Amino acid sequence: PPSRLPRVGTTIFSTMSQLAADTGALNLSQGFPDFDGPQALKDRVSHYLNQGHNQYAPMPGVPALREAIAHKVQTLYGYHADPDHEVTVTSGATEGIFAAIAACVRPGDEVIVFDPAYDCYEPAITLNGGITHHLPLQPPHFTIDWQQLADLLHRQPRLVIVNNPHNPTGAVLTQQDLNQLADLLAETPTLLLGDEVYEHIVFDGRPHLSLLSHPALAARSIVVSSFGKTYHTTGWKVGYVVAPQALSAEVRKVHQYLTFSTSTPFQWALADFMNQHPEHHTQLPHFYQAKRDHFCDLLRNSHFNLTPTQGTYFQLLDYHAISDQLDTEMALRLTREIGVAAIPISVFYAEPPRDLHYLRLCFAKSEATLSQAAERLCHLS
Amino acid sequence: PPSRLPRVGTTIFSTMSQLAADTGALNLSQGFPDFDGPQALKDRVSHYLNQGHNQYAPMPGVPALREAIAHKVQTLYGYHADPDHEVTVTSGATEGIFAAIAACVRPGDEVIVFDPAYDCYEPAITLNGGITHHLPLQPPHFTIDWQQLADLLHRQPRLVIVNNPHNPTGAVLTQQDLNQLADLLAETPTLLLGDEVYEHIVFDGRPHLSLLSHPALAARSIVVSSFGKTYHTTGWKVGYVVAPQALSAEVRKVHQYLTFSTSTPFQWALADFMNQHPEHHTQLPHFYQAKRDHFCDLLRNSHFNLTPTQGTYFQLLDYHAISDQLDTEMALRLTREIGVAAIPISVFYAEPPRDLHYLRLCFAKSEATLSQAAERLCHLS
Ligand SMILES: CSCCC(=O)C(=O)O
Ligand SMILES: CSCCC(=O)C(=O)O
Repeated sequence: PPSRLPRVGTTIFSTMSQLAADTGALNLSQGFPDFDGPQALKDRVSHYLNQGHNQYAPMPGVPALREAIAHKVQTLYGYHADPDHEVTVTSGATEGIFAAIAACVRPGDEVIVFDPAYDCYEPAITLNGGITHHLPLQPPHFTIDWQQLADLLHRQPRLVIVNNPHNPTGAVLTQQDLNQLADLLAETPTLLLGDEVYEHIVFDGRPHLSLLSHPALAARSIVVSSFGKTYHTTGWKVGYVVAPQALSAEVRKVHQYLTFSTSTPFQWALADFMNQHPEHHTQLPHFYQAKRDHFCDLLRNSHFNLTPTQGTYFQLLDYHAISDQLDTEMALRLTREIGVAAIPISVFYAEPPRDLHYLRLCFAKSEATLSQAAERLCHLS
Repeated sequence: PPSRLPRVGTTIFSTMSQLAADTGALNLSQGFPDFDGPQALKDRVSHYLNQGHNQYAPMPGVPALREAIAHKVQTLYGYHADPDHEVTVTSGATEGIFAAIAACVRPGDEVIVFDPAYDCYEPAITLNGGITHHLPLQPPHFTIDWQQLADLLHRQPRLVIVNNPHNPTGAVLTQQDLNQLADLLAETPTLLLGDEVYEHIVFDGRPHLSLLSHPALAARSIVVSSFGKTYHTTGWKVGYVVAPQALSAEVRKVHQYLTFSTSTPFQWALADFMNQHPEHHTQLPHFYQAKRDHFCDLLRNSHFNLTPTQGTYFQLLDYHAISDQLDTEMALRLTREIGVAAIPISVFYAEPPRDLHYLRLCFAKSEATLSQAAERLCHLS
């Protein structure tokens, strides 16, 4: 039968990680740390494995973990989530995003995404029969064009997907942005999907302004986050969804038949660790800002232009002073010639602008790796 | 917005497990063992956790695990699967089933399921815009009515879902069944989805006849299995999909955006354990047959009628000599009055037959639990 996702190929993350492995390049492409999660957290996993917590978790997640999540969003965002009905643990944020889209997008519904857009949104929209409208963010700071958004909202789209902090650009929304969004949505039936997996990685003293922190937005929002980014354990595939009860009920109906439940020992361990180490996520901005600054400082001597990223563990490098090659070609050249794998951001656009000369580099790496990568990058001219 | 799954409520498994917990009943409802996975397997998980295998696995799964799966299906079913392109590790069989359905069912496509049907098939078909045809299996042995199937195949359905060994009835297909199926499908474009999560739990010396074991069927089949049932670790949520390359490519496109990848340390550990303990799954029929026989022997003195199950870890009890209540009522009565939770099988029918008087009991339980449950069941008259 004909493909249901004819335009989908292998994701750029797999492609570049494979190329990095094949060529022995430093892999700053796919977003994952080259260091490990906290030992105390891993010890809790082994504990629960050995204490016989190896059968199905409850469909919406282990109660203690849902309570810890509810406590966190109350503390950080002033949002009251009922752990029994408004918090759902998923098999990674990817599953949460798919479940959210499947829960509210019906055939023919329109969905707005901002380009460059993380690559899992559109396939989920397509499989559910939705139509994707791509709204380009405005360089150099990748901000939302509010007029364009206002125009599209007249079409009464079902959903707007807001990724904040933004992957791949590192842009972070301000309070003014949230207010603007609330004003535009006020008279519409449009829902929001917040992809906030980098919620704890925001720099220079900025707060993360979750959709949950804005009551008018929170009332129409499904917010997805991930433990992988926060606890340096991207391979555990545990995420969660917070949404008002009526929306959560629909998300759970889908989750129930997508994966049913998520790994039990990880859930118990994460609940313990969140309760015992609330300082972990509050220290994360400092931890990653040191890496960002180390990397950016070393790149001052390069021919790349860069503005230190506002959030996420990704840094954009503007290479227009070096070359006017397409970013896909530039990414291959970097990997092969100097041994640094990066992500071209044009792959996240429905229609990449012609003059797009950015590569995304992941700085969730050891200081030594970052130093070595920066040294190689400085050779390029 | 209106629900995309208006007829979906909380799954019977959550409902009955919750009722069992609330009432203190022995929980023989939801299918999971009350004993633990092998210590050596759990030790391997801790090993990989502590050796830093905590970041994203490759999208299709860890190579060593795909190779171990390919080796197994070659050995057991004589099926050659290319581990690089025809084996995909998923976040439980549930994700594999959803991915398989999403990969091949387009809006308007028809899908045949045999009732009673495991409850995740129809929501996946519905979300993907498909139309489900329910074909009732014929009691007392829950066999396929080939004439009815032949009639429906004239409609050129996209897919037939074959669950073998069959949950909830324990029926197991014979070689004659597979041949019959192959004959009927020969001139059609219809694909098969094999849900074979109980592949290693088949009794009385019967072989499990995977769709993969029949070349004509295998060429049009997507076969899903699970590690949870085989290694007593239902809470780890690791499953897999085997299919010819063209079908696997479409399944992977969906998997890439449903969950992207599955927990890394579990995958490495399962690969090691499969390689080091090939005897584990070959001993499983004996292990579970002893439980089945223990349970059935004790129930000889009850007023239930039963035929020992052919496969799965479920035993059907026919209660028509005790009551003509609906099975949903009978299940509640058993839980509340004698403290044994079971699953009514009418919930797995689009249109339950009037004279359906079966409860499904899970015997993946310790001998003591089974003895106690049987004693309570013998009191009922
Ligand atoms: C799921 S693999 C991609 C990881 C990631 O989030 C990224 O690199 O942007
Ligand atoms: C996913 S919970 C249900 C477990 C199971 O397979 C069953 O009880 O039939």
